[in-house]
Amino acid sequence: MSGGGEGGGEAPDDGAPVARAPDEGEPRLGEFGAIERWLRPLARTLPGALDLTDDAGWLALPPGRILVAAKDAMVEGRHYFPGEPPEQVARKLLRVNLSDLAAMAATPVAYLLALAIPGPDAGKWMRRFAAGLAQDQARYGVALLGGDTVGTDGPAVMSLTLLGHAPAAERLLTRGGARPGDDVWVSGTIGDAALAVEAGYGRIDLAAMGLDAAACAAVEARRLLPEPRLALGSALAGIATACADVSDGLPADLGHIAETSGVDIRMRVDLVPLSPAARRVVSAGSVSAGAGLAPVVWTGGDDYELVFTAPPAARRAVMMQGARVGVAVTRIGQVTGQATGRGRVVLTDAGGPIVAGGQPGHVHF
Amino acid sequence: MSGGGEGGGEAPDDGAPVARAPDEGEPRLGEFGAIERWLRPLARTLPGALDLTDDAGWLALPPGRILVAAKDAMVEGRHYFPGEPPEQVARKLLRVNLSDLAAMAATPVAYLLALAIPGPDAGKWMRRFAAGLAQDQARYGVALLGGDTVGTDGPAVMSLTLLGHAPAAERLLTRGGARPGDDVWVSGTIGDAALAVEAGYGRIDLAAMGLDAAACAAVEARRLLPEPRLALGSALAGIATACADVSDGLPADLGHIAETSGVDIRMRVDLVPLSPAARRVVSAGSVSAGAGLAPVVWTGGDDYELVFTAPPAARRAVMMQGARVGVAVTRIGQVTGQATGRGRVVLTDAGGPIVAGGQPGHVHF
Repeated sequence: MSGGGEGGGEAPDDGAPVARAPDEGEPRLGEFGAIERWLRPLARTLPGALDLTDDAGWLALPPGRILVAAKDAMVEGRHYFPGEPPEQVARKLLRVNLSDLAAMAATPVAYLLALAIPGPDAGKWMRRFAAGLAQDQARYGVALLGGDTVGTDGPAVMSLTLLGHAPAAERLLTRGGARPGDDVWVSGTIGDAALAVEAGYGRIDLAAMGLDAAACAAVEARRLLPEPRLALGSALAGIATACADVSDGLPADLGHIAETSGVDIRMRVDLVPLSPAARRVVSAGSVSAGAGLAPVVWTGGDDYELVFTAPPAARRAVMMQGARVGVAVTRIGQVTGQATGRGRVVLTDAGGPIVAGGQPGHVHF
Repeated sequence: MSGGGEGGGEAPDDGAPVARAPDEGEPRLGEFGAIERWLRPLARTLPGALDLTDDAGWLALPPGRILVAAKDAMVEGRHYFPGEPPEQVARKLLRVNLSDLAAMAATPVAYLLALAIPGPDAGKWMRRFAAGLAQDQARYGVALLGGDTVGTDGPAVMSLTLLGHAPAAERLLTRGGARPGDDVWVSGTIGDAALAVEAGYGRIDLAAMGLDAAACAAVEARRLLPEPRLALGSALAGIATACADVSDGLPADLGHIAETSGVDIRMRVDLVPLSPAARRVVSAGSVSAGAGLAPVVWTGGDDYELVFTAPPAARRAVMMQGARVGVAVTRIGQVTGQATGRGRVVLTDAGGPIVAGGQPGHVHF
């Protein structure tokens, strides 16, 4: 773990911890002091992390396994609202990366972290950020291998590189394997995270739409702390033909699968599994733009469910694996195009292609 | 490679490339379009990069090797001057990470990238950034495995995660193995990068100190394009007892070795190898603070040479390996403390401990 000589904002150039001074009751550590105090404990279970004393770390993968790596970034004010608790931001950053590995049926083990943190409270922010990581890394069986912390004059920017492994490249789920005739499935429920974002921007009022406090909190939790579908992803290896996590929005992520696989996909919006809260809001509400909320629910991102394709012959196997890992799986469409398809996603309901966003006809993503 | 739905600044939420419009002669691509056009070619040689169509990538290490990973971040205005050519910024970001792997005697193979880029010219910036990466990844035999690009309202923030491998944990060079009695060595020359930083801030005028244009450019090149000492690092495996790259400054990086190894180190400043330009400047110049430039040269960072320890019995082996890979190696000190040392670095010249920065006595880092 390195703290660059130019970074951190709290440490002198020679990297020595500065003397402690009161800061809202917080010990003022230098950058290296903050790494040692708050981040080093996150690395304790990995011998290759070398207690974060080095510029790089090592990791021995189980024999015969291949490495799988994902790297997602988040920016304050873009991927989360300014002022959100650093604990939650950290857990979300870890979880969106875990979701990437889940979608490939890989097993996560370790992560590297790059933090660009503004202001004099960087040490305090790091303490809380590390507390969030500590909570989730125990839950998911991963630990910190290394990284870098620097200062910035702009919003906080952070990235996490998640390292994991899988048996072989052929066993990985990718976006590229969907075949004409395959079913399209999605796990869990869709839409809560998008509603929470709308509520966060003040564009809708969940309480006024009839949700009680507990239901509002549940909706918000889906945005703040997505649940990576690691067990389901692994269970689908060898069954699903293509898989992605729902981060950009269900039609957009299906569009990635369609494009990479060279097929078209038809998605039945009336079959998309919504949570009770989302169902209630969709029937009750309207957004300021005047359109119904249903498109927001279908097309919003951040759900981090898995959307995947599998041949009809595998329906029973998909259902059984879902039941085995305790995650609902719902069929919501079909791969319709030829293998030379253009990567179109068409939204339909029971009656055929639907009108959305005031535009008649097909909706192409 | 993912482009987050909230990021990029150029792409609509559904991720479809926007129509091209003139922008200083530059095609305006969406975020996904820019990834496809500028970054995908960097991933072509790695089958596990999946053409950057997926959220994660895979990598098969050579059998029996362990993974080695480093992750360094850079922030515009902190790690490089605003307005520096994106090509150079990209190459430096790659090289500082390569230097981390060099210091551990590891072999680099692939990297992941997280870019947070401001403004409407993000696509143009990415094109130039990718051009720099293309140049250096051919030189160093690495390729792009995945990552994330997002937008930001602040300065550009980027991180690179470099993945490589090594034969075994025991063969890695770390900061933790220095033993009392070991010699301290440094590769190449020290100080040019620090002078370039001083010149960049306008605190010194290299030309006025007698450097001609070629010499000024050579000094500046050391800051812009450090040369990671990969061959030397590998050659030192099994010979050196501890190793670090000189990024924070020679005494600071020796301090990291001393602290991690639990020893003290004495460094002879008069033995530190300076380039001809740095020697000339040190004898001619003065900084605005009024002190001599020598401390700037000794203590400035960004040289990315290797500083390492080895037992006196290995002197011949070190010299031979340096000659074999064509990199000068110079003895500049000794490990003096007991194994229970406090991690002090004492600067001396031929006559004993030196005075620096107007403070008499030892200089402790």
